[in-house]
Amino acid sequence: MNPINEQLTNPKSIAILGGSEDRSKPGGAVLHNLIKNGYNGYIYCVNTKGKNIQGQITYNDIGDMPHVDCAILAIPAAACPDAVKTLCSKKGCRAVIILSAGFAESGPEGSLLQKQIVDTANKYGAVVIGPNCTGIMTERYSGIFTTPGSINRKSGVRTVDLISGSGATIVYLWEQSIVHGISLANVFSIGNSAQVGAEDILEYLDGTYIKGKSSDVIMLYLESIPDPEKFCRHAASLTGKGVHITAIKSGKGSDGKRAASCHTGAMATPDQAIESLFRKAGIIRASGREELINIAAVLTYGKPEGNRLAIVTHAGGPGVMLADVLNSYNINIPKFTGKDAELLKSRLFNGSSISNPIDFLATGTLDQLMAIIDFCEMRGDVDAIAVIFGSHGLSDVAPAYRAILDRIKISGKIIYPIFPSTVNAAGAIKDFHKKGGVTFSEETDFAKAFAKVALCPGCFENDPAPAIDIKSIRSIIESSASGFLSPGASRMLLDACGIERTKEIIAYDRKELVNAAIEIGYPVAIKVLGHVHKTDIGGVSLNIADENTLITEFLRMMHLKDCRGVLVQPMISGTEVYIGAKKLPGFGPLVFCGLGGVYTDAIKDVAFGLSPISRKEAQYMISSLKCSLLLKGSRGKEGVNGTVFAEYLRRISALCRAAPEIEEITLDPLIGNNKKIIAIDVRIRIS
Amino acid sequence: MNPINEQLTNPKSIAILGGSEDRSKPGGAVLHNLIKNGYNGYIYCVNTKGKNIQGQITYNDIGDMPHVDCAILAIPAAACPDAVKTLCSKKGCRAVIILSAGFAESGPEGSLLQKQIVDTANKYGAVVIGPNCTGIMTERYSGIFTTPGSINRKSGVRTVDLISGSGATIVYLWEQSIVHGISLANVFSIGNSAQVGAEDILEYLDGTYIKGKSSDVIMLYLESIPDPEKFCRHAASLTGKGVHITAIKSGKGSDGKRAASCHTGAMATPDQAIESLFRKAGIIRASGREELINIAAVLTYGKPEGNRLAIVTHAGGPGVMLADVLNSYNINIPKFTGKDAELLKSRLFNGSSISNPIDFLATGTLDQLMAIIDFCEMRGDVDAIAVIFGSHGLSDVAPAYRAILDRIKISGKIIYPIFPSTVNAAGAIKDFHKKGGVTFSEETDFAKAFAKVALCPGCFENDPAPAIDIKSIRSIIESSASGFLSPGASRMLLDACGIERTKEIIAYDRKELVNAAIEIGYPVAIKVLGHVHKTDIGGVSLNIADENTLITEFLRMMHLKDCRGVLVQPMISGTEVYIGAKKLPGFGPLVFCGLGGVYTDAIKDVAFGLSPISRKEAQYMISSLKCSLLLKGSRGKEGVNGTVFAEYLRRISALCRAAPEIEEITLDPLIGNNKKIIAIDVRIRIS
Repeated sequence: MNPINEQLTNPKSIAILGGSEDRSKPGGAVLHNLIKNGYNGYIYCVNTKGKNIQGQITYNDIGDMPHVDCAILAIPAAACPDAVKTLCSKKGCRAVIILSAGFAESGPEGSLLQKQIVDTANKYGAVVIGPNCTGIMTERYSGIFTTPGSINRKSGVRTVDLISGSGATIVYLWEQSIVHGISLANVFSIGNSAQVGAEDILEYLDGTYIKGKSSDVIMLYLESIPDPEKFCRHAASLTGKGVHITAIKSGKGSDGKRAASCHTGAMATPDQAIESLFRKAGIIRASGREELINIAAVLTYGKPEGNRLAIVTHAGGPGVMLADVLNSYNINIPKFTGKDAELLKSRLFNGSSISNPIDFLATGTLDQLMAIIDFCEMRGDVDAIAVIFGSHGLSDVAPAYRAILDRIKISGKIIYPIFPSTVNAAGAIKDFHKKGGVTFSEETDFAKAFAKVALCPGCFENDPAPAIDIKSIRSIIESSASGFLSPGASRMLLDACGIERTKEIIAYDRKELVNAAIEIGYPVAIKVLGHVHKTDIGGVSLNIADENTLITEFLRMMHLKDCRGVLVQPMISGTEVYIGAKKLPGFGPLVFCGLGGVYTDAIKDVAFGLSPISRKEAQYMISSLKCSLLLKGSRGKEGVNGTVFAEYLRRISALCRAAPEIEEITLDPLIGNNKKIIAIDVRIRIS
Repeated sequence: MNPINEQLTNPKSIAILGGSEDRSKPGGAVLHNLIKNGYNGYIYCVNTKGKNIQGQITYNDIGDMPHVDCAILAIPAAACPDAVKTLCSKKGCRAVIILSAGFAESGPEGSLLQKQIVDTANKYGAVVIGPNCTGIMTERYSGIFTTPGSINRKSGVRTVDLISGSGATIVYLWEQSIVHGISLANVFSIGNSAQVGAEDILEYLDGTYIKGKSSDVIMLYLESIPDPEKFCRHAASLTGKGVHITAIKSGKGSDGKRAASCHTGAMATPDQAIESLFRKAGIIRASGREELINIAAVLTYGKPEGNRLAIVTHAGGPGVMLADVLNSYNINIPKFTGKDAELLKSRLFNGSSISNPIDFLATGTLDQLMAIIDFCEMRGDVDAIAVIFGSHGLSDVAPAYRAILDRIKISGKIIYPIFPSTVNAAGAIKDFHKKGGVTFSEETDFAKAFAKVALCPGCFENDPAPAIDIKSIRSIIESSASGFLSPGASRMLLDACGIERTKEIIAYDRKELVNAAIEIGYPVAIKVLGHVHKTDIGGVSLNIADENTLITEFLRMMHLKDCRGVLVQPMISGTEVYIGAKKLPGFGPLVFCGLGGVYTDAIKDVAFGLSPISRKEAQYMISSLKCSLLLKGSRGKEGVNGTVFAEYLRRISALCRAAPEIEEITLDPLIGNNKKIIAIDVRIRIS
């Protein structure tokens, strides 16, 4: 059950433990904020000294305090466990927000304190936010001790919810929200997440979502995701309802980059899992605060029908830079020509340009701007409009900004206002925000955010799992020892998954060898048995066309260390691809695929997806490969059947779920053509 | 000779034509700005109406005005040519700044006006800035009509010069400079560049550069570079003197992306030429205003000795995000361990982290911060220090900011101040700027800028050109018709350049064919003569091991359209690479290279360099290939000799300069191993 309750989000009374007159202390600052933002329930201040602190009923002893729904703790860490016990057991308190630091983040002693608190809270069915957090803001109250921390929702304006594992990052993101005119609705600083993590808050937002009332945009800053499955489930559910989520997950590390080969599981790092998780849930990932806030700002306008953007500007340079960035994301801006465009041009000053960007010059008038917007609204090849409007400081841009805002509110298409003059037009921009407008200040930051939003494929809904023979799979796995599976068991697993594999015959001596080659038919390949890294020791010989070469190679291989025999396979021509999966703690199987060859290794061209993988997601993975064009065939060379490739990804994903003992599986190479894909070599390691 | 003169940069008198009381007009605004910024020469106002405009001597007729050094024109375009004539011929004026629009940007009539002005100015040796510009600022005066436009140099502070082809972009960049605390020294709005372009201003800055007095950082915003060679010469000269240049060149286009193959010249677009030009001159390219300003801000601190950054933060999140971005650029941050690090940790609060990022917590003190900086300054593995310091709004950060600034001024290592709280700490940040500090507000924007600065190789100085046989080259070229060169002439050109080529014999019949194969030695390759796209029509047959196959393939090829004979070559094994060059108008030959194969084509992995190419630049080009690791050899496969590859790039570059008739040249493939590289096929088109 989700720990977040009504006492936390909509408390009838709030106690501030450590409430103070000193507003430079968290206890004083949070009390002040609560009062200032018009919380209309009962406020009790608890402080061993003082009375009537900040004009509120003050108790020197918590024992004297009446029952309370919610408590905000700004007292030393060591005093918190007892306080929580008293609150829960004697005061009916079911929501605790702990601002204090000195818990798990500071060492084992702090961890113990934290555990005691959660144990108490769980016993009484109370929710705990933090510790080591800056507080929360809901529709009912602002329980935040940092500034900004004020409720600034405006009626009729799309709001944004914010969840962060870093208190300072909440402060900075909130400041940036103000700079862009974004209204925050719910803010959760989760601190150490002793009991409540981002997953729980997403679950709560998912469960309480009401279209038209709840925020349609969520910003996240996370340093860890302890329960990826739960996180994904609720994020995907929210995006499925039309909520847009953008998130930073920091601490990416650089391990994957150093990996020598992407054909192995070495590239399958936790960060790749996060990337896959976000994609699956339809979350747009950002790598910095400014990017996050720009994406959130774009999302407050909703998602446009398509990515065909009209750029309207009275300053040439920024329009061109905006177009450059869109081009770099392969988003082409439509070119405007024809009678209507010429008519529009005739209404603009000499030297204006209408092809897109539409540049109506620094001297352009507001009437011209409105005529341009009319023009863009009428066009079938425009999904949204970006208006760049700065100030050279000679005249007041406020009337223009008001007209743009009015237009934004009634327009059938999204209009993004880019107002670069953060100094010259500071007042007019502030005014624009007050009236509910959200702005961008830098056109290329806007363009990157727009591109990320436009190119986000949305969440991938689950398909029914592919039909694989689970009974056989279980039986093979259960009868195998841990470590690498035998070739025989591996082959049987492929058969159980319906993955076609190459014909192969084991030969231990010359006679068996020659017969095997005849049965399979020349040319053949032979590979030493029992070695994992066959190629590296010279244990693979390809394209053997005749018996003489066959025997020579066989004799050579039999001298390799531990070589007992060889595998004889037909030579199959086609394009080499590979598929693999690796179990990542917390995430489950991370499936990956790519084209064979040293080039794709050199550029780390590999696509990842978390199991389970839907058809659409499998196709997306394949098409996201940098070399994906080659899979379609090129220069007269046959391609690889994409449907089969996608289906194999799904089957390997399903296999790993059916057999969670599988730590790592690699099918490398698979050889494919337009019709089918055949596994040549497979390695499976189980625990 | 550079048109920029003393009358422009340091005029004893300035006339404002169209000077006005109305400060919402350019003529009024520029006059106001000139007065407000304390210009101490004579100011004459010329206006048909009014007197004593803004308290200045005002003439209703230009004829009454005394001699003047410099004139700023804010009058209708049509009136400018006559005004310039009067100024130059009768008033001794040798510097004209034309703010007015309505010239080349608005059509052919305007172009004519512009030309008349330049002709007059050239006749009298006068300089013309603009038209259609916002003015200039020098050490002596501010002749800018937009805001901001005030002289804000502070003594002892590194200044930045700004040159822009877009007037609005100057406004916005200037506003951003204020936000970051950057002091601008010289500002040039070049407008239509009728006479003076960015090249000329760079030449001027280059010619007048005085270490310690001139700005050491230049920001450029450009939409075109009419004279790339001049641009490159002076930019490289400036960077050679220790000046840092960062530039936006917008209007990148997207043609190169659509090119089917990068082995041909199709990828050699003007934007690739710009990229190469900037690299050659040591210019750091930015793609947006915020990136440009962040790079400039980093550069105001000079270039650090290395890229080993210590990250000091009292907010966990931003420190991790900063490290993530550096990792993404393959810049590893040093990890701090050992006795000193433990000692430092003991001085910090519980829960602090010292491994890098050094996180001293939100509650950390100023003393602790100073101890951390001491620690970083002592370490041999730290080149520079980034300090992230925001405000949660409870206390005043001004004392900390003052201490940081004091430290910046005396520290032996660069300290970059990242102050994210642009709202909470707005006043303290402003104060920091007033005292000469330059700040960053977003850690990932800083990190990207730092990475670009740290990874910039600097300008590439020229080596002596490689010794090629220019006499032979000229004779071959001059005796060839335009179009594709014959195989014989192409081969001779390679020989004249000292590029090794494969042995080859032409065979027109079976007998010649069989003899040729015997002479060359099996296996051989045969290729039809005379076709440019041989592969596409089946005109190439490789790996022919015996006479039977040879004859079969020959007979097949002789049935291809227009096939008169074949070329017989030995099969050479090794790694395929290619080199090409294409003449780009204005830029000269753009040389390119890459590894062969469909993969490198699919990901457009190609490196470019403008001729002439120094040894270092050639090596840089090769190492910048995404697949460059493969050139070193991998998985037991031999690599390609990098010295020879680089030398061939230089020789092709030299060939194109010796024979400017060459429009396009492609050596594809060349086959290389550890010792040598041999050209297999070459195509050369001349004009």
